[in-house]
Amino acid sequence: MIIVIKPHTPSDSVQRIIDEVAKLGYEPKPIHGAVQTVVAAIGDETTHQSLESLLTWPEVESVLRVQKRYKLASRETRDASTVHVAGHPIGTGQPFCLMAGPCSVESEDQLMTTARAVKAAGAVLLRGGAFKPRTSPYEFQGLGEPGLKLLAAARAETGLGIVTEVLAERDVDLVASYADLLQIGARNAQNFSLIKEAARSQKPILLKRGLSMKIEEWLLAAEYALSEGNPNVILCERGIRTFETYTRNTLDLAAVAIAKKESHLPVVVDPSQGCGRADLVTELCKAAVALAADGLLIEVHPCPAEAWSDGQQQVDLNAFSNLVREIQPFIQLVRP
Amino acid sequence: MIIVIKPHTPSDSVQRIIDEVAKLGYEPKPIHGAVQTVVAAIGDETTHQSLESLLTWPEVESVLRVQKRYKLASRETRDASTVHVAGHPIGTGQPFCLMAGPCSVESEDQLMTTARAVKAAGAVLLRGGAFKPRTSPYEFQGLGEPGLKLLAAARAETGLGIVTEVLAERDVDLVASYADLLQIGARNAQNFSLIKEAARSQKPILLKRGLSMKIEEWLLAAEYALSEGNPNVILCERGIRTFETYTRNTLDLAAVAIAKKESHLPVVVDPSQGCGRADLVTELCKAAVALAADGLLIEVHPCPAEAWSDGQQQVDLNAFSNLVREIQPFIQLVRP
Amino acid sequence: MIIVIKPHTPSDSVQRIIDEVAKLGYEPKPIHGAVQTVVAAIGDETTHQSLESLLTWPEVESVLRVQKRYKLASRETRDASTVHVAGHPIGTGQPFCLMAGPCSVESEDQLMTTARAVKAAGAVLLRGGAFKPRTSPYEFQGLGEPGLKLLAAARAETGLGIVTEVLAERDVDLVASYADLLQIGARNAQNFSLIKEAARSQKPILLKRGLSMKIEEWLLAAEYALSEGNPNVILCERGIRTFETYTRNTLDLAAVAIAKKESHLPVVVDPSQGCGRADLVTELCKAAVALAADGLLIEVHPCPAEAWSDGQQQVDLNAFSNLVREIQPFIQLVRP
Amino acid sequence: MIIVIKPHTPSDSVQRIIDEVAKLGYEPKPIHGAVQTVVAAIGDETTHQSLESLLTWPEVESVLRVQKRYKLASRETRDASTVHVAGHPIGTGQPFCLMAGPCSVESEDQLMTTARAVKAAGAVLLRGGAFKPRTSPYEFQGLGEPGLKLLAAARAETGLGIVTEVLAERDVDLVASYADLLQIGARNAQNFSLIKEAARSQKPILLKRGLSMKIEEWLLAAEYALSEGNPNVILCERGIRTFETYTRNTLDLAAVAIAKKESHLPVVVDPSQGCGRADLVTELCKAAVALAADGLLIEVHPCPAEAWSDGQQQVDLNAFSNLVREIQPFIQLVRP
Repeated sequence: MIIVIKPHTPSDSVQRIIDEVAKLGYEPKPIHGAVQTVVAAIGDETTHQSLESLLTWPEVESVLRVQKRYKLASRETRDASTVHVAGHPIGTGQPFCLMAGPCSVESEDQLMTTARAVKAAGAVLLRGGAFKPRTSPYEFQGLGEPGLKLLAAARAETGLGIVTEVLAERDVDLVASYADLLQIGARNAQNFSLIKEAARSQKPILLKRGLSMKIEEWLLAAEYALSEGNPNVILCERGIRTFETYTRNTLDLAAVAIAKKESHLPVVVDPSQGCGRADLVTELCKAAVALAADGLLIEVHPCPAEAWSDGQQQVDLNAFSNLVREIQPFIQLVRP
Repeated sequence: MIIVIKPHTPSDSVQRIIDEVAKLGYEPKPIHGAVQTVVAAIGDETTHQSLESLLTWPEVESVLRVQKRYKLASRETRDASTVHVAGHPIGTGQPFCLMAGPCSVESEDQLMTTARAVKAAGAVLLRGGAFKPRTSPYEFQGLGEPGLKLLAAARAETGLGIVTEVLAERDVDLVASYADLLQIGARNAQNFSLIKEAARSQKPILLKRGLSMKIEEWLLAAEYALSEGNPNVILCERGIRTFETYTRNTLDLAAVAIAKKESHLPVVVDPSQGCGRADLVTELCKAAVALAADGLLIEVHPCPAEAWSDGQQQVDLNAFSNLVREIQPFIQLVRP
Repeated sequence: MIIVIKPHTPSDSVQRIIDEVAKLGYEPKPIHGAVQTVVAAIGDETTHQSLESLLTWPEVESVLRVQKRYKLASRETRDASTVHVAGHPIGTGQPFCLMAGPCSVESEDQLMTTARAVKAAGAVLLRGGAFKPRTSPYEFQGLGEPGLKLLAAARAETGLGIVTEVLAERDVDLVASYADLLQIGARNAQNFSLIKEAARSQKPILLKRGLSMKIEEWLLAAEYALSEGNPNVILCERGIRTFETYTRNTLDLAAVAIAKKESHLPVVVDPSQGCGRADLVTELCKAAVALAADGLLIEVHPCPAEAWSDGQQQVDLNAFSNLVREIQPFIQLVRP
Repeated sequence: MIIVIKPHTPSDSVQRIIDEVAKLGYEPKPIHGAVQTVVAAIGDETTHQSLESLLTWPEVESVLRVQKRYKLASRETRDASTVHVAGHPIGTGQPFCLMAGPCSVESEDQLMTTARAVKAAGAVLLRGGAFKPRTSPYEFQGLGEPGLKLLAAARAETGLGIVTEVLAERDVDLVASYADLLQIGARNAQNFSLIKEAARSQKPILLKRGLSMKIEEWLLAAEYALSEGNPNVILCERGIRTFETYTRNTLDLAAVAIAKKESHLPVVVDPSQGCGRADLVTELCKAAVALAADGLLIEVHPCPAEAWSDGQQQVDLNAFSNLVREIQPFIQLVRP
């Protein structure tokens, strides 16, 4: 770390800072600059206490980190990794992975109709929420286990793998017994208890980015899962919260390129949550493919206007089929 | 709800929208304006499906909600409520409530020293984290149950009530057996499983605002706790995430006034998290008092530079004592 | 507009609101809903006063706009428009427009070297700042008119059209006498005096989106230029300010699709400002092309490490040539 | 500056970076840490080129600034300064300064009524916009010079000083000939041409914080004015843009404490713009006073519901009189 000392600090105060840095286990190296002194604190920042606490000293102007905070997720440690979900490899150099299905599982008819349609269009994984994190307790909270059973039935018929969200630690075993890919939603993106519990199931994890999560924090949340010994983590960019109100969230597509550069984990994009408007989904899918995302997670419903949750961002079966046709040439360009 | 139809939409398309509104259980009332038609959908929005799903229809320009989404938390339903914690009433018209203590419980000595000092300065509740939600898995995660035992010992000696965070559903019973006030942290502010589990313990809940949570969403998260039959919810403003980097978060003090106007729940302020800098805490406390917050939650450590977590935002024992002396006249002005 | 009245408001108070709506020139239509009353105010919102002022009445809960606020910029009024710059048509259905050049004009050698290289790689317009809006007064402020003369010389030699920023009303005539496309920068995106003055020059305008500008506000800023009788406005998405710190700005690529849907104006993307990091520019360009942007504005410098401004986001000549080669197949896919 | 080099960079690449740092005029000091090497670049950052351009080198991980970027505005250079406006001293240790008046000057009757009332309640400066920066060109743009004449007439009758906004460089002389305090609005907060022109008038400047302006950028905008030789700059916090939609802006009250700590300039607060809702203004005023703001700028209108601009955030004459009475004890506490 680098401790920046305020200009005009007397030398005995500087010495006290140097002594404290040493006391906290770092080797202090003072550097006297043109205007002020900085102290470089030599030591592994991931195994020592943060020196940001020195900001409470009136002579300290700022404390700057030097090292990256993530290790297991870092691209420095290894090449791009591949995560297998229901037999499908996902990651750099692997086939593009299309995941699609309704926001919520509502009924056998709704789910089976959608499953058959997305399979026919080219999806390999079926998404569908059985446990739904809704902003209001008065909104539909998902079918629960009956919803999971419907997903399993859809898998049995279509062969599609299952992606579904787990909301509660106590449900991890239950959901993991049905799912091929366990989704941690944006609202739980820093619910470390849930992330660790989900990781311990040894199922692959789909880790959505939180609404106001910096990329560094996202990779550190992945680090929690990786630290539990589960290497199968897929990152999912799904939009961040900004001042813009035209869209529900602002899809941060640069984050796809960054996450793939900083980490070795596969990165997919959820354009449905990412904008909250069905009419923008196809265009955003093209951009995500062009940016080398490893897959897409798309909300599809037979009749969006009558969906029990988030109808406004779901495309219908026909639109999904057109969408896949439209993005196909982009996929071929990026993954020939 | 109000469905705004695009200008120049043919009347048969308008009729289809009207029919769909009726099909979804609302009574449609079309209003023909100067430029475009809107359809007022008569019906209780909290018991019907959202019509935002109609945005998937190309003729629909926007859908506007009319009703507030929270009921139990709403000020419309009742007068300001009082929550009792360890015998101390908190709320409008009650004595100002001072909660203070270290970010993390680190040791008996650290905790007891702090507890005695904050008690002497005027605090009535002792805060201290035994389970810590840390951005990185390599940072100190809290002492766990031994930390809770230390908090209980501090209560036994000083008589201070205990405020501490619960991170995991499975720990709710354990933490509730020690705590007088169960804190739900900002990262779990939309972890509805945890909120419901905590509420079911019947302990009072301190619900921090999430980093990117709109006030409406904060009140809806409180609604989850209230819906479980636990009326003892205290809201805590602790800063939101913005583009500003001088402070760790941007303390949204207007939110205190708004939360007290929109809801009947007590509202307290955490200035330590709210700015992330010890040197700003006293000033922010004055402002929070002036804005009629019902209490403060302040991080205090005997030696902040050597704290195991968030040292930069903790004030030392002497500074806390001065802080209390400085805010006292403001408290007397607001709560004579 | 729709005026939402609070539940339980007595009918005489409702009548007072209705009367005030009429007094303000609208025809009021009360609608009695399940829980509360709303008043639809019939009248053209663009020629009447906003009724948001009624929020000062304690019985009024909210006021909702119905109409779009922009007219001349709106897609409703006309088909996609084409703007010609130095003989090059820009817009939907036109050839993709590549604009490139240094952040600042620094010297004849720097500019001519860059101009020749970007021309060779396929650019048709040369960008370069002669007047620079710098955050600090101690940073390089641009060469001024000598910089404009260098741009003109580069045009004379290479045939490239010139894009350059104007910062001050008093400089509009001067800059317009050299430029083919007058740039209004992000910091001046709501400097309406400058926008109007620039529009009156009758030169085409490149209107960058402001750092915290909603899309609606961006289109309304364009409306200021269009209202002056200058139809040649090109929108430029260049990233918005968010909490993320890995990138300088968050490029809002969905805004490209939205701006092209809501307005008839051409939309281009500045990926250099959009992320502030040279290593992300190529990937973002691909995404912008895929999203049907009409062009790109890219910062290129012969030696970015020694650039006088924003070196970190400029690609070198070789990287630019590779970039153009890499995005070419995407352009052919979108504009066959 | 500190250049952080990526781990595992070969020593000859490190040497190239060291050489480039020297070439750019700094004295390089490499420091070999536990995991990676950093190069401290010794030299005055305000007179040398930024080394952030080195980020284009693949071996450079990050570049960290050490020095503050503002000098004339910095508290390091001098004690708290006092700005005199129409004979009233504003700043630390001076009487609290109350500025009030309508958003826009609409008519003689409206302005005189307001002026008399705010004077009677205790205001010493009269605010009122004659040139209005409106989001839409179809909204009221201000009366222009006739509005200024009305302000002058109000000053003649009441003795109140005049605060009014200038929008265009060409209007600076005109507005300065009427105003006692020249306001630079939030949308022009980085319109450096206007700031410099206004500063050259030698009138005191009220510099509002921009909607998405970091505190550092705000002080650097002030630095532009100070650099023109005009020491009379007052900072005005007026809310920043965030995701919250309950309020128009999020008033960043911590910024008041920070601006007073980092700079010597007086700091006032505009709670009207700061929240955009008349019903919150009084509470926010109390908080601003408690935080040691040097004054308040409050929008007051005889009949807010019929105001020509921003009626929803203006308090009426009676409310203003009550507001002043309510904040008086807080003022006495802070400035006894």
